[in-house]
Order: sequence, then C-alpha cells, then structure tokens
Amino acid sequence: MRVLGIDPGVATIGFGVVDIQRGMHRLVQYGVITTPPGIPLSRRLLQIAQDMAELLERFRPDEAAVEELFFTKNITTGIAVAHGRGVILLEVERSGCPVFEYTPMQVKQAVAGYGKAEKRQVMLMTQRLLHMQSIPRPDDAADALAIALCHGRSATSLMNTERVFDPKKYDTR
Amino acid sequence: MRVLGIDPGVATIGFGVVDIQRGMHRLVQYGVITTPPGIPLSRRLLQIAQDMAELLERFRPDEAAVEELFFTKNITTGIAVAHGRGVILLEVERSGCPVFEYTPMQVKQAVAGYGKAEKRQVMLMTQRLLHMQSIPRPDDAADALAIALCHGRSATSLMNTERVFDPKKYDTR
Repeated sequence: MRVLGIDPGVATIGFGVVDIQRGMHRLVQYGVITTPPGIPLSRRLLQIAQDMAELLERFRPDEAAVEELFFTKNITTGIAVAHGRGVILLEVERSGCPVFEYTPMQVKQAVAGYGKAEKRQVMLMTQRLLHMQSIPRPDDAADALAIALCHGRSATSLMNTERVFDPKKYDTR
Repeated sequence: MRVLGIDPGVATIGFGVVDIQRGMHRLVQYGVITTPPGIPLSRRLLQIAQDMAELLERFRPDEAAVEELFFTKNITTGIAVAHGRGVILLEVERSGCPVFEYTPMQVKQAVAGYGKAEKRQVMLMTQRLLHMQSIPRPDDAADALAIALCHGRSATSLMNTERVFDPKKYDTR
C-alpha cells in the first residue's frame, strides 16, 4: 500500500510518500510544496491545488493521511492554514484517493509510542523506520513522513478515523 | 459589472449575484449551497467546489467578493469554515474571476453607512437597494447580497483590497 502523508499549510506543505507492506516501510519520496508570500491568498491556494494534483498524479497513492489542525495560540495562523488544508483535502478527494485524518498526538503515539513525545524523538523514529541516513529535512517533510507512517501503523484500526471503514478493502484472505 | 458575493461556510454557503451599472443595482439571483453534516469533510469540500464551479459557469461574474472570517469565540467553527473558504477562493481563482475580500465591518459600512450597524439594518438596506419586496432569506444569502453590494460600492477604492489595482480595467474614458 502506498501512503501519501501531508503536513498541511499555506506557505509550506510537507509531503511524504511511503510504501508499506506487512509492517515493512520503503521511502519513495518526500519534500515540500511552497507558495510565495507576496501574492493573494486565492493564487497561493490555486498553486497548492495544482501542485497537489501533480503529486497525486505522479505518485498515485492508495491512501492519504492529513494531519489535523491543533491551535491553541495563534488563531490568525490557524485560519490561514485551514484555508490551505481545505484545498489539500479537496484535491485528494477529487483524485479519488481515500483521505484519513490524524491528530498530532495520534502521530506521536503511532511513531514514537508516546502521545506526548518530543518532536526530535518522532523524527529519529521516522529516520529509523525509513532506514534514512539522517533526519529528513525540512521539518514539514519529516512531519509528513511521520503522518504517513502513522497511517501505516493505524491501518488495522481504521474505525478510529473519520472515513467509514470498508471491510472488503482490507480483507486479508 | 456583474458581482458574485459569497458568505463562506462548510454547511451553508450564501451566494448573491448582482448587476451593478453606474450606481444602479439589479438583482440577478441569490441562494445557498448546502452540504450534509453526516459525510466526511473532504466530500463536503468536493461538493462545495463542484457547486461553486457550476455557479461561476452559470452566472459568469466579472468580479467576486468573499467575506473575511472574523472569529473571536469558537475556534473550532472558525477552522471548519476556513476549510470551506479556502475551497471557495480556489474555485473563484480557477475560473479566472478576480477575487476581493471584505471584513464584516467593511460590508456594514458600505451597505448601511455604519461599520457597527445591526444585522437587521444591513438586511433592510440590502432589500431597499435591490428593490426587493421583503428581506432576502435565508440569512446567508442576504449576507452574500450585502457583500456583493459592498463590492459594488467599493469599486472606486480598489486599492483597499488584497488584489493589486489594475487601472486599465477601471479606465472610464
């Protein structure tokens, strides 16, 4: 199963593509989509939509995992990021790829085994699970890989996600 | 000039189409796009995108005006609405229609002449300016018409909006 993990945003969107088979992980690609700050929000959103469509077309993931937003401090930033996240969810849905959503705590729990793990612990586990020589950079891409890994590790407990579980799809006969 | 006003949301999106010529207003259409609550957010966003594309294709507005989000109380609602607003801005931009953004206060100021006007005052002025027999319903559609009227009344001061002013477009020779 190929999983596309996405760390949503407007200025920088992290993405990570991982192939997962029977608990084994193979890194396919990771990186970031960026948009320039000096143009109107609607144009940045169009660029994100076009880049997302290209990513989905190029890597053809079986499933996508997008981190949920969790804001306690800066509402303004949260509102902006949510605009980008809306466009990301839209483009994944439009491509026909099932979308799953995870909280930052679920990602930490699944990858580092502890919901309140430090960012660095999560990154080190991501590096180890994907047999990488160093911690993936930039941070947003590392986060996206962790989200993809989280989905791979949660695939047996899909009832916890927003999308309705389809037992036929995961029939292992 | 045909203006599409939009009151953004996820569950209910208000829209209003108004033709504006030399300070005269003609109501073309108004209504709401709605999405059901029981389906995943990504599917609701896809439905919004499809309905927006249909609206833009059907009415072919020259310009669109979308209200800015202003949240002080419920962050969770604000985040959800921002997902929908991102998709709305995307579809307007994708159609090639210039997008303008106004705060609720700018809309009140432009339509009722007072930035802290009561909702009912704004609705009564909207009704009057569009020669309607009663206050437009539902509220989201009335808000969208007020946003369209606000843009019509602000078109001589486009420097205040996010998009860069193009003097050629508004040359009145």
